[in-house]
Amino acid sequence: MAEAYREAGAASLTILGVMGEAPKLDQDESLQFLRCVLRHAGGLPAVVGVSAPGYAPMRALAARAMDEGAAAVMIAPPPGLRGDDAALAWLRGAAQAVAPAPWVLQDFPAANGVHLPPRVIAELAADPHCVMLKAEDWPGLDKITALHGMMARGEMRRIAIFGGNSGNFLPEETARGTDGVMTGYAFPEMLVAVRNLILAGRMDAALNAFEPHLPLIRAEIQPGLGLAIRKHVLHRRGILASGALRAPGPRLTAETRAEVDALLARLAQRDPATRRLAA
Amino acid sequence: MAEAYREAGAASLTILGVMGEAPKLDQDESLQFLRCVLRHAGGLPAVVGVSAPGYAPMRALAARAMDEGAAAVMIAPPPGLRGDDAALAWLRGAAQAVAPAPWVLQDFPAANGVHLPPRVIAELAADPHCVMLKAEDWPGLDKITALHGMMARGEMRRIAIFGGNSGNFLPEETARGTDGVMTGYAFPEMLVAVRNLILAGRMDAALNAFEPHLPLIRAEIQPGLGLAIRKHVLHRRGILASGALRAPGPRLTAETRAEVDALLARLAQRDPATRRLAA
Amino acid sequence: MAEAYREAGAASLTILGVMGEAPKLDQDESLQFLRCVLRHAGGLPAVVGVSAPGYAPMRALAARAMDEGAAAVMIAPPPGLRGDDAALAWLRGAAQAVAPAPWVLQDFPAANGVHLPPRVIAELAADPHCVMLKAEDWPGLDKITALHGMMARGEMRRIAIFGGNSGNFLPEETARGTDGVMTGYAFPEMLVAVRNLILAGRMDAALNAFEPHLPLIRAEIQPGLGLAIRKHVLHRRGILASGALRAPGPRLTAETRAEVDALLARLAQRDPATRRLAA
Amino acid sequence: MAEAYREAGAASLTILGVMGEAPKLDQDESLQFLRCVLRHAGGLPAVVGVSAPGYAPMRALAARAMDEGAAAVMIAPPPGLRGDDAALAWLRGAAQAVAPAPWVLQDFPAANGVHLPPRVIAELAADPHCVMLKAEDWPGLDKITALHGMMARGEMRRIAIFGGNSGNFLPEETARGTDGVMTGYAFPEMLVAVRNLILAGRMDAALNAFEPHLPLIRAEIQPGLGLAIRKHVLHRRGILASGALRAPGPRLTAETRAEVDALLARLAQRDPATRRLAA
Repeated sequence: MAEAYREAGAASLTILGVMGEAPKLDQDESLQFLRCVLRHAGGLPAVVGVSAPGYAPMRALAARAMDEGAAAVMIAPPPGLRGDDAALAWLRGAAQAVAPAPWVLQDFPAANGVHLPPRVIAELAADPHCVMLKAEDWPGLDKITALHGMMARGEMRRIAIFGGNSGNFLPEETARGTDGVMTGYAFPEMLVAVRNLILAGRMDAALNAFEPHLPLIRAEIQPGLGLAIRKHVLHRRGILASGALRAPGPRLTAETRAEVDALLARLAQRDPATRRLAA
Repeated sequence: MAEAYREAGAASLTILGVMGEAPKLDQDESLQFLRCVLRHAGGLPAVVGVSAPGYAPMRALAARAMDEGAAAVMIAPPPGLRGDDAALAWLRGAAQAVAPAPWVLQDFPAANGVHLPPRVIAELAADPHCVMLKAEDWPGLDKITALHGMMARGEMRRIAIFGGNSGNFLPEETARGTDGVMTGYAFPEMLVAVRNLILAGRMDAALNAFEPHLPLIRAEIQPGLGLAIRKHVLHRRGILASGALRAPGPRLTAETRAEVDALLARLAQRDPATRRLAA
Repeated sequence: MAEAYREAGAASLTILGVMGEAPKLDQDESLQFLRCVLRHAGGLPAVVGVSAPGYAPMRALAARAMDEGAAAVMIAPPPGLRGDDAALAWLRGAAQAVAPAPWVLQDFPAANGVHLPPRVIAELAADPHCVMLKAEDWPGLDKITALHGMMARGEMRRIAIFGGNSGNFLPEETARGTDGVMTGYAFPEMLVAVRNLILAGRMDAALNAFEPHLPLIRAEIQPGLGLAIRKHVLHRRGILASGALRAPGPRLTAETRAEVDALLARLAQRDPATRRLAA
Repeated sequence: MAEAYREAGAASLTILGVMGEAPKLDQDESLQFLRCVLRHAGGLPAVVGVSAPGYAPMRALAARAMDEGAAAVMIAPPPGLRGDDAALAWLRGAAQAVAPAPWVLQDFPAANGVHLPPRVIAELAADPHCVMLKAEDWPGLDKITALHGMMARGEMRRIAIFGGNSGNFLPEETARGTDGVMTGYAFPEMLVAVRNLILAGRMDAALNAFEPHLPLIRAEIQPGLGLAIRKHVLHRRGILASGALRAPGPRLTAETRAEVDALLARLAQRDPATRRLAA
């Protein structure tokens, strides 16, 4: 998978994030997975998700990840924080726990119920080790613009902002000025192509490349089931040896598998570059 | 608006649902709105949302709505019900409260956190006044299939199942056997056309009609902001005199408005039937 | 009930709050109830809960309540507000909606999931119509102290702070400087007596009066079931003609009723003033 | 601490539960703590909490715990399970993951939002390795009675039911027939004494022993802050070398510490056996 994403044009990798199966791994498996990916990353920098309810497991995993060659770690807050100041305090402590690792802030309230307004993100970005925001609030485009405005006015230290959410708003977020996209959509080459077209000023061509993928993005972005669909597609593409999720996790019914296969068939018509599926 | 949806091919109307601004109306305004819609519905049957935390307001609104000529009422459970049996008991009481009005069960856990498994829906459908399920679980396609299986095996009284969720999975849910779609997407004529094409066995033509709308559906389906986008589009189409939301509610930023207008311009290229926007 | 609470020493009344059955009433019943209470309040000022998801129903009920002679209205935010600024904006709009009625801010995150940090409460208190905070955060004693500190330092306009939560922390919150207690515990005369003893510097006597009630407070404070227990006790005291809750709501099992009756019997031993129960 | 609880009359110990600081430990620390407790348990059986979002970490910790001499493991479901069947399926998988370890089901919806109705608990109890329910639903007394009824009628395999919730309803739950209490209240000798008195038919004496502790139980049961209070009391008793919580976690303000110290002073008056506090 690492090789496939690199060949697809990815400039970096993110692993052990919250959508995938990181919480289902025990500590030894996490480290084994981490080493395996780094070995096959071909020099691409890798961001390693270390989110946990407490600081000690984050500190331990961050230290191991950096020792193994990770470029940065990623932190999302846990559920249950009471208000902006509680979120700010928790995340400041987390940043200290993983220091001196560079860290990425993941803003994904749909997964944890924690809302981070621009002011809180700006205060966290003041930490010189904070290098990036993974912007996954939904709706979230105006927040990206608000943060860019604060950076332009000198009210916030400059950090990179990458979009996420399976690329669901990739054209809009790129036009709003994001610095990249960090998400595991099963056709990463499309994400690369669309960004490059938009940066080259060719929005119509970008939309022509993007829109055929929207029906599949729509399926992959579903809570819970979306991961099973993504792994099925990666398996169909020959990128994963198996599309099965580790328990506990949903299995695709025959009906859903047929629907996803139909989406892939139609995608192959509309975007011929996607035809190279596994036999 | 009632006239526009009727002209677009709607066979019935639903008003005062949970996505719109019903909770922002006082009781007199709700009744005034209800009468106005029924007066302009041109004979289309209308379903009236009556969901409330308690039974008395539901009973009162249901009685008024039926007196005014509504065809049925719609009920969604409130947040905070503890487990399947609590949801079942609450909804049974609600059905008694609105009796003898025919009622539609709205299954929309993203809005209220209440999960209704097929078994609970089947028990509710045993009420002879229960006429329809508005299926808005997400992901929810396998639930539709499960319910159809129970009806086919005689384990559940037959009721209609209509899709919702702004039509986001209209092709798949129609292929799974839904009886209609009940949602306020700003181009209802597309919903009608796509269903008719699928029922005529023309799935490819249906997808050709559907997919150009997916970028806008993706925008309308966003929590909170989506309603502001829908009203903006209805205003652009000349269907609403104003796109403004009643407070409390978000306003579209200039950036978001420009993005939605760009979606409309692109849609007009891809689906020429949508070009009749207001000047 | 209004007469009983007045005779128990209440200096004011609060009705249609969030713990009780206000959401189960239709609009006409709410007004009928409001008029009935005001008629029997014997001149006590009454605060009327007007919380609703939208502003129009709040505006309508607030206007009617003030016309009928209410002293103020009470507002709690609805679930689903995203972060401090969203809560602040929603509540500012609510205050405008009920203006010029004096209003009480109810801070009760256990009921709605909205956390209001001291800074937000201070900004809301700047509204000259904001007269009181009903402090029901849990744990919440340090927040009371923080707010008093802000008022003392001139960082916040002075408003009254009343405790709630069935009096569960009445001694501590009174010692922290609250201005009163606003809660419906079934023996309000105890609340009055305990406050007076503490204000007179007699903490030990206050605790002697308070502690015998803690087993019953513990039962009344339970989510959902607590209201059924309170109404049962008020019925046993002869204050309510019936202890039944309007559906939907729990009924006391025989076991729970026996437990509450045992708590009352023991309370009668320890606090002889509570012996005047209905035959 | 293990020695102190054993001397206080505890017949078994539970460690690494959800109220404490288990999620703040990394894997090595968890094992170190586990070994330390078992070494000092003086032969008391120990239950080890292994709850995690995925099965692999649970399987790994359960295996290590049993190897080290634990008597059983304890499992609570994670947040986010959608309905009764989802909870049942998740917990069945968890039981398989820790097999053949005996396991305790923790029913604590306030911590995870998962409601387990009696039917689901009965289905889980059918697993011969399921040995106990830790009953912490709130309100939850009627659920205990419902489960006992199902066991008496042969509708559910017999398992032990232990109360929790800091002993807040110890008299009532014991009278309802619980088999023990499993909670970390800072004066465990009171829990033992009260149970023994009730089992001896001396309810009045039990209440005389219980009620002086209710003001402190009320403080310890508070979400978040309660653990800091418990550790402070254990420190005051000389049972912990420090009352500090590992970050992230609240610190007691001077005001709260003074309140807890006042509760301890008053408790020492009312229950002389509690006077042995650290100097």
